[in-house]
Amino acid sequence: MKIEVVKGGICAVKGVRANGIKEGNKGLALIEGKGIAVGMFTINKIKAAPVSFTRKQLEKGEGRIGAIIANSGCANSFTGEKGIWNAERMAELASSSLGVDKEEVAVASTGSIGKQLDMGLIERQLGEVVNGLSSEGEGSKAVAKAIMTTDTFHKERAISIDTGDEERVVIGGIAKGSGMIFPHLATATMLSFIYTDASLGEEALRRSLKDAVDNSFNMIVVDGDMSTNDMVLLVSTGRSGKISEADFKEGLNLVCKELAKLIARDGEGATKFVEVKVRGAASVEDAREVAKAIVRSPLVKSAIFGERPDLTCGRIIAAIGSSAISGDIEPGEISITLKGENGKEVLVVKKGEFVDLSGVARSIMKEKEMIIDVDMGIGKEEVEATAWGCDLSYDYVRINVG
Amino acid sequence: MKIEVVKGGICAVKGVRANGIKEGNKGLALIEGKGIAVGMFTINKIKAAPVSFTRKQLEKGEGRIGAIIANSGCANSFTGEKGIWNAERMAELASSSLGVDKEEVAVASTGSIGKQLDMGLIERQLGEVVNGLSSEGEGSKAVAKAIMTTDTFHKERAISIDTGDEERVVIGGIAKGSGMIFPHLATATMLSFIYTDASLGEEALRRSLKDAVDNSFNMIVVDGDMSTNDMVLLVSTGRSGKISEADFKEGLNLVCKELAKLIARDGEGATKFVEVKVRGAASVEDAREVAKAIVRSPLVKSAIFGERPDLTCGRIIAAIGSSAISGDIEPGEISITLKGENGKEVLVVKKGEFVDLSGVARSIMKEKEMIIDVDMGIGKEEVEATAWGCDLSYDYVRINVG
Repeated sequence: MKIEVVKGGICAVKGVRANGIKEGNKGLALIEGKGIAVGMFTINKIKAAPVSFTRKQLEKGEGRIGAIIANSGCANSFTGEKGIWNAERMAELASSSLGVDKEEVAVASTGSIGKQLDMGLIERQLGEVVNGLSSEGEGSKAVAKAIMTTDTFHKERAISIDTGDEERVVIGGIAKGSGMIFPHLATATMLSFIYTDASLGEEALRRSLKDAVDNSFNMIVVDGDMSTNDMVLLVSTGRSGKISEADFKEGLNLVCKELAKLIARDGEGATKFVEVKVRGAASVEDAREVAKAIVRSPLVKSAIFGERPDLTCGRIIAAIGSSAISGDIEPGEISITLKGENGKEVLVVKKGEFVDLSGVARSIMKEKEMIIDVDMGIGKEEVEATAWGCDLSYDYVRINVG
Repeated sequence: MKIEVVKGGICAVKGVRANGIKEGNKGLALIEGKGIAVGMFTINKIKAAPVSFTRKQLEKGEGRIGAIIANSGCANSFTGEKGIWNAERMAELASSSLGVDKEEVAVASTGSIGKQLDMGLIERQLGEVVNGLSSEGEGSKAVAKAIMTTDTFHKERAISIDTGDEERVVIGGIAKGSGMIFPHLATATMLSFIYTDASLGEEALRRSLKDAVDNSFNMIVVDGDMSTNDMVLLVSTGRSGKISEADFKEGLNLVCKELAKLIARDGEGATKFVEVKVRGAASVEDAREVAKAIVRSPLVKSAIFGERPDLTCGRIIAAIGSSAISGDIEPGEISITLKGENGKEVLVVKKGEFVDLSGVARSIMKEKEMIIDVDMGIGKEEVEATAWGCDLSYDYVRINVG
């Protein structure tokens, strides 16, 4: 199996047309593309109207959707009965514009909580968006831009998989998100819409999505807050040749990881991108928890912003100890390596002892990207997990004071 | 039972002598006072040497201690065998200086992780501290100041309880802490040493301490990080008359809450003090979780710093939904009232709908202290919990970049 990165985002998948518009902070996006759909949604106990609505749609439409309509600027969350009615109305508008079944429209929203949608605006914006639907890359880009909120760049990725048959399988996705990012448990985060022409059944798609989300969107942390609106949708048009579930999983994992890393890079106020790799833990679950505890810690994040290897390592130790793991920790077995760009690396903690925290460590911490490699020293090397995050800068506060 | 606030901190308790010294960021504190001791310690899986050491001491000494020695500037955490040896050496030094049993010395440390103690410095500082031991308020103050790290003011409180008998019962405590504050589960947080002359058995003291810590130190959040060094010690000299366990609990709760609130007020970079009261939840545990989720959220905290009632309320809703509660949430039943100084208050969310977020709400958010009163609307009014915290300002980042 060969994987090639291609252009076009969701429109790299045949049969998908898309367009979006953004006016001030109010955007509207529309995607047309029929197929089997599976989704993962926020586990926040307060769910936005579009989340409740779309979950029901996927059940009603027997797992098939024909279109996704999404708006930014208003989350349609904590909006009561009227909110549900408005989400339904968004589906109706998309349905009549595109001539797809009303039961087969998914709805998503992102933005401020507690406000009702401006349905007049959405109706007007939809008129413009429908006219410009495109099956080219520009369509995907317009959608990715329309759903941005505090994002500083739009996020899309597509790959083409050579399965050995004549036809290739394409997976393309877009995502948005930069704050209120803390994926938790077996759930999705932020908005991400992924299309593929792979021909796979609903159950295989569901398994693949869960696996990919657990290894990608669920492993990024910006601020530890959990949104009421998170949603990941995977739609398979089934137009291409066959692909094994294992191969598809590998491809989907890659796309989701790339999108997740884009979100971590675009973390509100981020000046540095951090990958935390944890290995040698008692179990993969423990490795995941430790990795997430490290990228979540505000103290670790601010020490990274301050480019201080000594503070960073001390706080990593405290974060490791506070992680919600089931296995034991042996402080005397923990080793930590910092890795920078161009192969630069230094062992900063060697089996429970701080070693070199000056020189190379300092120079790595000045770089824009770094890998923190933690060896827990009690399990097998292969028992590993990776999480992604960013530093905590003054700008995180500036962006969020409103 | 009448409670009166008195001066003198831990030295308000008869038989307690104290002194401390601070040179740069290196401080040393010594407290002399014999009695029954109970403690609560961090649940961080990586425990600093003094935490492991003092836990064992309390068992070995059969719950009696004669002295506490504590240093700031170095946490003696993640320091292996040598760290344990140094903690023991601190106990020995205090023991020979004061002539108390070596088995009856408690040791605490706070500061940077991963560095060994400078034992020469500690020995020298101890010499000076022993000479100045005082049973007056200045002794308590010197201890409270010596253990400060990023604290901007020292923290002490004492009360005198009129039990109706001739003798009064005194409870006096000191505390330090302003960052890496996220008390969790049934554990203690930061450093706090509390003395009382109340005559109560070890079990009653233990129950009282757990109850008080659960309602105070475990209900404050500064940044959600958990230290490897947290410790709360309660020592009863038993020199005063009898007091019922219920009355003692009430008094101890008051002292611990006051100390906890001082820590929240002194949160790193804090410009505002926030009390979150949650009532009408399905259970007290749920009320606690919701209150803590709100004061923990970086997005809520930065919206408070930005004095934005609309953002604050939206993010409170997301935080409520993401809290780890076992009961249900009915968004349509939630009401939120903001309360400011001088009795100013405004209902901002009324049974699931945002109401007045301008005028009074804005003016309350400009104040230095505010109460966020959340009625979950599904349980009894009396089912309530209170948490304390602060806003997230640029200065939190500035302080923590090192």
